[in-house]
Amino acid sequence: MASLTPWISIPQDSDFSIYNLPFGIFSRQYEPPRAAIAIGDKLIDLFPLAKQGFFDELVPTRTVFAEPTLNSFIALGKKITNGVRLLVQTWLCEEGSPLHQNQDLIYPQADVKMHLPVKIGDYTDFYSSIEHATNVGKMFRDPENALLPNWKHIPVGYHGRASSIIPSGQPILRPKGQVVAKDAKDPSYQPSGRLDFELEMAFIIGKNTELGDSISTAEAEDYIFGMVLFNDWSARDIQKWEYVPLGPFLGKSFASSVSPWVVPLEALDPFRVPGPEQNPPVLPYLNYMGNKNYDIALEVGIQPRGATETIVSRSNFQYMYWNMAQQLAHHTINGCNVNVGDMMASGTISGKSEDSYGSMLELAWAGSKPLKMSDGSERVFINDYDTVIMRGHAEKDGVRVGFGEVRAQVLPGK
Amino acid sequence: MASLTPWISIPQDSDFSIYNLPFGIFSRQYEPPRAAIAIGDKLIDLFPLAKQGFFDELVPTRTVFAEPTLNSFIALGKKITNGVRLLVQTWLCEEGSPLHQNQDLIYPQADVKMHLPVKIGDYTDFYSSIEHATNVGKMFRDPENALLPNWKHIPVGYHGRASSIIPSGQPILRPKGQVVAKDAKDPSYQPSGRLDFELEMAFIIGKNTELGDSISTAEAEDYIFGMVLFNDWSARDIQKWEYVPLGPFLGKSFASSVSPWVVPLEALDPFRVPGPEQNPPVLPYLNYMGNKNYDIALEVGIQPRGATETIVSRSNFQYMYWNMAQQLAHHTINGCNVNVGDMMASGTISGKSEDSYGSMLELAWAGSKPLKMSDGSERVFINDYDTVIMRGHAEKDGVRVGFGEVRAQVLPGK
Repeated sequence: MASLTPWISIPQDSDFSIYNLPFGIFSRQYEPPRAAIAIGDKLIDLFPLAKQGFFDELVPTRTVFAEPTLNSFIALGKKITNGVRLLVQTWLCEEGSPLHQNQDLIYPQADVKMHLPVKIGDYTDFYSSIEHATNVGKMFRDPENALLPNWKHIPVGYHGRASSIIPSGQPILRPKGQVVAKDAKDPSYQPSGRLDFELEMAFIIGKNTELGDSISTAEAEDYIFGMVLFNDWSARDIQKWEYVPLGPFLGKSFASSVSPWVVPLEALDPFRVPGPEQNPPVLPYLNYMGNKNYDIALEVGIQPRGATETIVSRSNFQYMYWNMAQQLAHHTINGCNVNVGDMMASGTISGKSEDSYGSMLELAWAGSKPLKMSDGSERVFINDYDTVIMRGHAEKDGVRVGFGEVRAQVLPGK
Repeated sequence: MASLTPWISIPQDSDFSIYNLPFGIFSRQYEPPRAAIAIGDKLIDLFPLAKQGFFDELVPTRTVFAEPTLNSFIALGKKITNGVRLLVQTWLCEEGSPLHQNQDLIYPQADVKMHLPVKIGDYTDFYSSIEHATNVGKMFRDPENALLPNWKHIPVGYHGRASSIIPSGQPILRPKGQVVAKDAKDPSYQPSGRLDFELEMAFIIGKNTELGDSISTAEAEDYIFGMVLFNDWSARDIQKWEYVPLGPFLGKSFASSVSPWVVPLEALDPFRVPGPEQNPPVLPYLNYMGNKNYDIALEVGIQPRGATETIVSRSNFQYMYWNMAQQLAHHTINGCNVNVGDMMASGTISGKSEDSYGSMLELAWAGSKPLKMSDGSERVFINDYDTVIMRGHAEKDGVRVGFGEVRAQVLPGK
């Protein structure tokens, strides 16, 4: 499989290998945001290549690469988007190719600013890790009946706030809100004291549907353009007081952070694995054929101010009980329409072992088991000035395809 | 107060009096959608007036009226949007005015198609009627403790699906999904058997905020451009099975219908009334000064196929326990940003009397009290081919300002 030999130098173990080639939106100083492909620690500026006509056989409009989001490009369809990716892959391996002759259009990633890759219409968050749902159920409801009766029948999900999804690197402001102090009856207004991350991945819709249409599990992956890392920041104390009966609201809507490079589903194809057995059997519209889970190793680090990072969790996207095809089939079974750029997140991805849990709530078991940082300090939730970093990559037969990272520092609120 | 005398003829009791002048988006055959103001049973085509320069002193860009949504126009700010409204009001009362000389730009509403007035970024649904929350609590939880502990402290709300919000007139397809039949343990897949409306009103955000900003109750109305009628279609059987613990999802996301004319908050100013006393007292950030409820009479009709309409509910927007300023202050207290075009719905607006309830769930008390239609048939929920119509208007001292209607027929699903 690993047979391509690019002329460009790529750091060993780079997430952005010749087999990946994810899309993103970058800008350089005084220049407007536009589309790029990542390779190694560099990126390829696509619009100047398009302007010279090098994509003309594939792409109907050159300016699609000059837009500040990937939406119009994605809407062209997988045949075109993956065509561009494969063409660039060929160029990167061919001396004398258009890209080889335009190496001034390859910039270090360190020199540019990355933006949100898409304009997000609607954002949905699922709750599809059985370990996470069980852990939360044990802590907050009944340890003997941790999973609610609907959980194994429905890929449970809810609508989230799209406006507050921000790109990696932008700081998070600690939210304020109503919380009920221990032993208090009434709420008080204060900064959240239980700020948490949630380790998630999200997929981005690549094709519109009409209201009334449903997407089958067999078709679902045609509607998924690609994936990003997703940190679903959560204020546990605000969430706990507000969420019954209509679900999470202000405990989540202050911010979610995403990684800037969208890895197309095609690049993840070699890393398919079987999902867990689903028992009881699911309803027919949730049945699926083939391997629809993906082996993507994930980790979370916390870096206190002035200290080195401590890895607090190692998990894997393959642990998901419900896969993306099932999530999308369920989301549209009632006729709900989806649009290019919609984002659908997995829910917290926890594994079976205690060091694979995807949130501080679970890792420190609701505050009862503090985690030690490299500087000797302890954490049960996230402190001001901590930076939280999530990383993810797949690797097999010498081929590595990764997501880079999503990172954000927590600052005191305004 | 009622002192303006327009030269245009306006049907008596029209919602679209000279004191209203709401904005909407219309199209004529073979022409693109663009902005209009409603007057009586007609509308005024604004772009051709702008092209002639008649708004130049107020509006920086003429083409803002040629766009397919009101977002750019609204983003100009209330000084400009209300300036346009007042200028048109003056023209409508002045012989020889630019509009009087361009009466060919006034078309019957019956001859045009109305569209969604705004591109909706995020949609939020509140749950702010104490009568509705109490009724639902009695039916589904504990009749003795119908209101949950947080209800009187928080204007409870949740994120809804923006993509499936559709304009009045577009039919609704009965959704399919997972429901648990009576006495069954496991879910089955079937069309919803408990399709319901929810009588709501929604406000539209008129000004962006930055992530981290909060809007005070005193500032809130500056951020509200105007209001529409809102039918939050609900599939009660799907909702019941799915909603614990993360809230409503597919039971709502198949469709919500809105009225096409956005009534600016300025037009509703004469109809302010005090809200209900809030006890226990709310936290300081939810305190407010002045009258922030609005006396808007609401009604819901059901029209079976081939029969006349039966009015099944008469309610009023003034019943809301939580007002819009409190909803918006709460929504942003955690720093969540809002954008022009965001829509925030009230939640079902029920009154105290049984004939003022805002949903079939309450009117027919979970199926136990069927409602009689004009053709002798009975309803506990909404049948295929029924049309549901909601209307709303304010009236005082001979001045009427109304919303027209939001209507939709229910069709069997695909």
